[in-house]
Amino acid sequence: MLYIVGLGLGDEKDITLRGLEAVKKCDQIFIEAYTSLLSFGLSSDGLSTLENLYGKPVTLADRETVEEKADQILSAAAASDVAFLVVGDPFGATTHTDLVVRAKKLGIDVKVVHNASVMNAVGICGLQLYHYGETVSIPFFTETWRPDSFYEKIQKNRGLGLHTLCLLDIRVKEPTLESLCRGRKQYEPPRYMSINTAIEQLLEVEENQGESAYDENTMCVGLARLGSEDQKIVSGTMKELQSVDFGAPLHCLVIVGKTHPVEEEMLDFYRLKKQNVEENDHGTV
Amino acid sequence: MLYIVGLGLGDEKDITLRGLEAVKKCDQIFIEAYTSLLSFGLSSDGLSTLENLYGKPVTLADRETVEEKADQILSAAAASDVAFLVVGDPFGATTHTDLVVRAKKLGIDVKVVHNASVMNAVGICGLQLYHYGETVSIPFFTETWRPDSFYEKIQKNRGLGLHTLCLLDIRVKEPTLESLCRGRKQYEPPRYMSINTAIEQLLEVEENQGESAYDENTMCVGLARLGSEDQKIVSGTMKELQSVDFGAPLHCLVIVGKTHPVEEEMLDFYRLKKQNVEENDHGTV
Repeated sequence: MLYIVGLGLGDEKDITLRGLEAVKKCDQIFIEAYTSLLSFGLSSDGLSTLENLYGKPVTLADRETVEEKADQILSAAAASDVAFLVVGDPFGATTHTDLVVRAKKLGIDVKVVHNASVMNAVGICGLQLYHYGETVSIPFFTETWRPDSFYEKIQKNRGLGLHTLCLLDIRVKEPTLESLCRGRKQYEPPRYMSINTAIEQLLEVEENQGESAYDENTMCVGLARLGSEDQKIVSGTMKELQSVDFGAPLHCLVIVGKTHPVEEEMLDFYRLKKQNVEENDHGTV
Repeated sequence: MLYIVGLGLGDEKDITLRGLEAVKKCDQIFIEAYTSLLSFGLSSDGLSTLENLYGKPVTLADRETVEEKADQILSAAAASDVAFLVVGDPFGATTHTDLVVRAKKLGIDVKVVHNASVMNAVGICGLQLYHYGETVSIPFFTETWRPDSFYEKIQKNRGLGLHTLCLLDIRVKEPTLESLCRGRKQYEPPRYMSINTAIEQLLEVEENQGESAYDENTMCVGLARLGSEDQKIVSGTMKELQSVDFGAPLHCLVIVGKTHPVEEEMLDFYRLKKQNVEENDHGTV
């Protein structure tokens, strides 16, 4: 049996009782490490916070392990109970559909233990989840690669009065150009896009496309470390949020569509004012 | 402090460790009872499954309690730690934004403990969450009230190639017409819309509107008791799903948009075939 267990968004305490029970009865535990594990006790020494809680070792499965060594995970799961741990929900922002498909083709039973993901926890900002349109991803621009397919999607969402959740790029274990040339694996340090960078890129694309999908006065909500004790949520225009220091990753951004009165009241609480920002620094709403 | 704690989708075991910790330190615990509590050990005798787990009494707060007695909950929260428990995520399908707004106006701190909701757990059917458009609600039609605003939204989503999550009506503690006339409170038995009824209503509206937003050959996924041990997930055309017995509530329905190859592979596993339906009867993917 392959258990795919969502860990939620904050830290080791966000696992469900059902998830913990599954993990404890498994013979092997893998954890995906290609989204952020910053708050889950991950250090270069190992995974001691999680291992202490589970009472057994946890194997870090980076992108290479999952993609290249899926066979190993799956053959273990064919013979015994194996847990694959995922930050957020197994089918949230990061998809593990491919692993499920491969397991099912091999006749391995899969059980999923759900948890919160950014896709539903973003509801805390007060904008109703059923008023969101298609979710977009904002990738890091480079000198030569500046993909802007998100622009048209945001434009369509806003045309329908819908909010847009922007997921911001995460670069973990990217091989260096040098290592690709030499055939020896070396990695870039991890990079997580900030809300500030996202807005900068969004405004650059608007300037190039010029179709007024949004502008620097468009209302947004920035959310940092969603679901953690020290989450920070601030609403304001793009221009206003550009100068806010949201602190450590992960960040995400909502571009606000048409709002209803209750939504507006909630946005007001998060509005960029000195005292609000301070209140928001301690994990309360 | 007011803790708003998501319970997740399955049963009492779907609370997170963080949520359980919060509940255990609260002086009073309320649980909202206007979405389905069917699998959470709710019975006419009380809430023994949850009360046993928490080691303290739980007060059932139906729609009237929350709306009329919010002051009581909030004044308790101003003086001590109070937990308000919510099926799914606090900001999932059912919104509790209003309670948060009222608490904040009174200067009461609010902490939210997230959990899975239908809005992200629906990802288990294999359709990517970021390819969904606006979520729609399908209300029970009556002789005289047949609202169809969902039709236009589905049409727009499908025009953009996006999937549509349809949330199906729940009627809990609806006063009887007789009791409204007599001023004495009596309630209709609870009603939960089935996937079959939803499809029937959808096809009726398509016939009336005639704009080919979808038809009986449109691919859908029906999901019953999502997140529970006995969840049932079947993909097929509207016509095919209309004759499937999905069993006990809650049900929801996804109208499939444009699909990618991995999405199609997952839908194939859930495709209406005799053996698949049986496999899906035991809570595995």
